[in-house]
Amino acid sequence: MTDATVYVVGVGPGDPELMTLKAARIISQSPSVAYFCRHDRMGHARRIADAHIAEGTRELRFAYPFTTERQVNDPSYHPDMSSFYDDCANRIEAEIQLGRDVAILCEGDPFLYGSAMYLFDRLKAGTPCEVIPGITGMSGCWTEAALPMTHGDDVLCVLPATMPEDDLTNWLEKADAAVVMKLGRNLPKLQTALKRAGRMQDAVYVERGTQDDARVMPLADMSEPAPYFSLALLPGRRGVR
Amino acid sequence: MTDATVYVVGVGPGDPELMTLKAARIISQSPSVAYFCRHDRMGHARRIADAHIAEGTRELRFAYPFTTERQVNDPSYHPDMSSFYDDCANRIEAEIQLGRDVAILCEGDPFLYGSAMYLFDRLKAGTPCEVIPGITGMSGCWTEAALPMTHGDDVLCVLPATMPEDDLTNWLEKADAAVVMKLGRNLPKLQTALKRAGRMQDAVYVERGTQDDARVMPLADMSEPAPYFSLALLPGRRGVR
Ligand SMILES: C[S@@+](CC[C@H](N)C(=O)[O-])C[C@H]1O[C@@H](n2cnc3c(N)ncnc32)[C@H](O)[C@@H]1O
Ligand SMILES: C[S@@+](CC[C@H](N)C(=O)[O-])C[C@H]1O[C@@H](n2cnc3c(N)ncnc32)[C@H](O)[C@@H]1O
Repeated sequence: MTDATVYVVGVGPGDPELMTLKAARIISQSPSVAYFCRHDRMGHARRIADAHIAEGTRELRFAYPFTTERQVNDPSYHPDMSSFYDDCANRIEAEIQLGRDVAILCEGDPFLYGSAMYLFDRLKAGTPCEVIPGITGMSGCWTEAALPMTHGDDVLCVLPATMPEDDLTNWLEKADAAVVMKLGRNLPKLQTALKRAGRMQDAVYVERGTQDDARVMPLADMSEPAPYFSLALLPGRRGVR
Repeated sequence: MTDATVYVVGVGPGDPELMTLKAARIISQSPSVAYFCRHDRMGHARRIADAHIAEGTRELRFAYPFTTERQVNDPSYHPDMSSFYDDCANRIEAEIQLGRDVAILCEGDPFLYGSAMYLFDRLKAGTPCEVIPGITGMSGCWTEAALPMTHGDDVLCVLPATMPEDDLTNWLEKADAAVVMKLGRNLPKLQTALKRAGRMQDAVYVERGTQDDARVMPLADMSEPAPYFSLALLPGRRGVR
């Protein structure tokens, strides 16, 4: 058909200067950009990339059919998300058919819990795809907190706070260093798990790492509901001094 | 004293275009750059940053007193490394005293198993330090391998191949997704651990990810000694399809 390419572009954790040179170049050269967002918002990745999107660029806006209103264990969750991703992939393919490169903008790194993986999985067989890695949210956050994470032989575990409390506790006991993502309504559960694992005193909470309104504090002191862009850091235990 | 600053700058996994806009700016503005290297080599981070180092920039070259010649369990290893890091920190402080900003160049992200953490730990109390995150080696490698790593509730474990075989096997059984770093002479041990954990068929070997001479292959097929810049990837098991 055409030789147009899908670029899956990591735009980093929030500070627009933390995009890579390659991401900035690809975005500025792409006739079309695509991004996920909540139906009522601009889209975080879109905002990070703003300065590099040329005037006249076509925008494919993929508004999630639901976010926190529906639970992952609701039986309709997976089928509905799956057909949403099918639609998004079809819209991208239509651009490619017209010979237009599409840059899919992704928060952080695309292949670390990124929604764009679901599009990549659907498109890769039929369309040339290139992925551009991004600074992860966790790197942005441990930098914001000035917290070296892993020394020497430390094991680092990246844990979604969505798992059951007992599992979370076990992981937090075993890991040397840990990052806990997707806090939101799981924050009280995480705090209990950290206490049970005897590691609350070392846990640091970071909200909107590398963004203008970033916040860093001991996780023990956090009592409000955690926003979407927040995570917890537990630095490793070892190291040459 | 002076208001000079130490910048601890992640330069990413190898492709110079995978530096951030901020890293490129800071490096190009710094009167002095510092970097680790083997005594007989230019230094990998130095080479990645090359295009952004202005003519006349002062270079502090920190040649490791030993690399693979001495084992970590040798009793002289830690004291000798520790006094090496003390010397490096002193050389940086001397630059700062003269009012010169210093950019310490670091492969990947500085706070993920980076040697620059040992300088940061020594300098931070007395000197303004700013850290700039970088694309990690692992992000570079899973991008190179076109391997989405973690979906949904997957747990990702980052494991140094230096640990004992039994521990490695246990971690590989428990983890959904895993990255195994620091392969080198530990490759045969890792292969045994992956077989014991029943996960050899999914393991991907990546060498020099994002560099011109990158290689990707099934880990089962790798029989030569692994070079320093190599790691193993085990993608997660779950996800919406
Ligand atoms: C669906 S995951 C996407 C991760 C992204 N692909 C990455 O590489 O960071 C979203 C989670 O990432 C974390 N996150 C991403 N960026 C963040 C930031 N700037 N500050 C705090 N947390 C962040 C939060 O825990 C959030 O719930
Ligand atoms: C001392 S650690 C430093 C990690 C670095 N700070 C980072 O963020 O990736 C060195 C290890 O990182 C891994 N590594 C870093 N860059 C790599 C690359 N481009 N390709 C393969 N492995 C890499 C290798 O396993 C290597 O032994």
